[in-house]
Amino acid sequence: MRKVLLIGVGAGDPDYVTVQAIKALNTVDAFFLIDKGSSKDDLLALRREICERHIEGDGYRFVQAMDPERDRTAEAYGDAVKDWHHRRAEIFERMIAEELGEDGVGAILVWGDPSLYDGTIRIVEELIERGNVAFEWDVIPGVSSLHALTARHRIPLNRIGEPIHITPGRLLTDGMPPGLDNVVVMLDGECAFRKVTDPDVDIYWGAYLGTRDEMLFSGPVAEIGAQIEEARAQARERKGWVMDTYLLRRRKG
Amino acid sequence: MRKVLLIGVGAGDPDYVTVQAIKALNTVDAFFLIDKGSSKDDLLALRREICERHIEGDGYRFVQAMDPERDRTAEAYGDAVKDWHHRRAEIFERMIAEELGEDGVGAILVWGDPSLYDGTIRIVEELIERGNVAFEWDVIPGVSSLHALTARHRIPLNRIGEPIHITPGRLLTDGMPPGLDNVVVMLDGECAFRKVTDPDVDIYWGAYLGTRDEMLFSGPVAEIGAQIEEARAQARERKGWVMDTYLLRRRKG
Ligand SMILES: C[S@@+](CC[C@H](N)C(=O)[O-])C[C@H]1O[C@@H](n2cnc3c(N)ncnc32)[C@H](O)[C@@H]1O
Ligand SMILES: C[S@@+](CC[C@H](N)C(=O)[O-])C[C@H]1O[C@@H](n2cnc3c(N)ncnc32)[C@H](O)[C@@H]1O
Repeated sequence: MRKVLLIGVGAGDPDYVTVQAIKALNTVDAFFLIDKGSSKDDLLALRREICERHIEGDGYRFVQAMDPERDRTAEAYGDAVKDWHHRRAEIFERMIAEELGEDGVGAILVWGDPSLYDGTIRIVEELIERGNVAFEWDVIPGVSSLHALTARHRIPLNRIGEPIHITPGRLLTDGMPPGLDNVVVMLDGECAFRKVTDPDVDIYWGAYLGTRDEMLFSGPVAEIGAQIEEARAQARERKGWVMDTYLLRRRKG
Repeated sequence: MRKVLLIGVGAGDPDYVTVQAIKALNTVDAFFLIDKGSSKDDLLALRREICERHIEGDGYRFVQAMDPERDRTAEAYGDAVKDWHHRRAEIFERMIAEELGEDGVGAILVWGDPSLYDGTIRIVEELIERGNVAFEWDVIPGVSSLHALTARHRIPLNRIGEPIHITPGRLLTDGMPPGLDNVVVMLDGECAFRKVTDPDVDIYWGAYLGTRDEMLFSGPVAEIGAQIEEARAQARERKGWVMDTYLLRRRKG
């Protein structure tokens, strides 16, 4: 039976990779890569580096396809993402059928942890529903950017007994959500933290976490928000892309 | 300068340990362990196993202390936990002062990821504020039980664009919190999921994730809640302790 592994490789430092992931990498015949175009070449390179560093021998190959186009207008968000996943599913279906032998093992390397704001699990579920190719599958967890962020700032996600809220930036339209004291924001292209004006909210912000380009800022968001926005814009200009996440925490007592 | 490392070792499978953690383990002179009494001996044993498996040579030692008593009555929760952290801080302060040489490296192995519902970072912050021993410190992220849970169930934490809420079981007093569709519950000694009666909420439950004793259940919580409660009670009886976590997700459309 064919097998497909979704392997979380950690969100930044190549050393975030786990022993379980390394063992899995060493069973793989073909790595399926999606090429997102020049701006994110660094991330493709990092995936290749992880393979080269941790796989013994060279009994594996990379199979690369172009990422389908995606409608990035705000109105279409949910449907556009679903449509894009759908076309990605077709690409993976073809790769599995054409590139894996009867007992072949294919793998998709997933940034960070595969369960956190990533569509790969849903794509595999779609392939299984379609039923055109038969395969077993497994998911290997990884160190997510959640944990990279807090480790690099040396902070807990929560104070004792408090809940934690994780949200995409696009839902943070009205500033700090009422009733929540620990909010982690991901996928924020618009510096939504600039809408948080509460004087008692601290931000712990990180970009390119775990990499050589890592940037960290922390302090009252109303005071340092503008500075972060500017540093982010400059970094983005310099590298061509930026990946950032942050924790907003309401101070107490 | 002395150095103290908080090393996340992953939440269950010893193979969840990262390459970064292994590199760190190999620099450590003394591992500080807190003995929680017989019922959690398994977890102490797992920490020792991780060291034995991944450290080359035997240039390290374990320094073990008894866990201070903790008031487990519900009313005292916040203060009791703080008081307990406080007494743990004193123990660690003594260990660092007495067991580490001028350039010694000490480490505390933290279950899962050190930022998620764990007091060790706060303890180190307290030690630094007290200022009785001087040391550098660093935090190494790990695979948390969040990611172990979803990997073992092969599910995403969230659907496209949705927020994720993480909460201790004791805050889940009134069933599924209104307005939230993805709720992860940790530290739940009371099977709080039994209070969720909504017919459209699924539970993805896991205990002893990543270990030989792993248990997984999933389905509509109103239907399978009783079954999980019973299986949990039996497991707890058998092993003397249980560690479980779960995702509650509202079905849509
Ligand atoms: C599509 S999501 C994937 C998240 C990934 N599965 C994880 O576990 O972290 C991408 C978002 O994750 C966050 N992110 C991932 N890696 C990051 C890093 N090294 N530094 C900062 N943010 C990161 C950013 O918010 C980014 O917009
Ligand atoms: C004190 S918290 C520590 C969490 C840990 N720092 C982490 O990253 O997962 C302990 C809680 O984590 C959850 N947990 C940790 N490891 C687990 C495992 N292997 N299986 C199920 N639940 C686990 C349970 O909810 C437990 O009550």
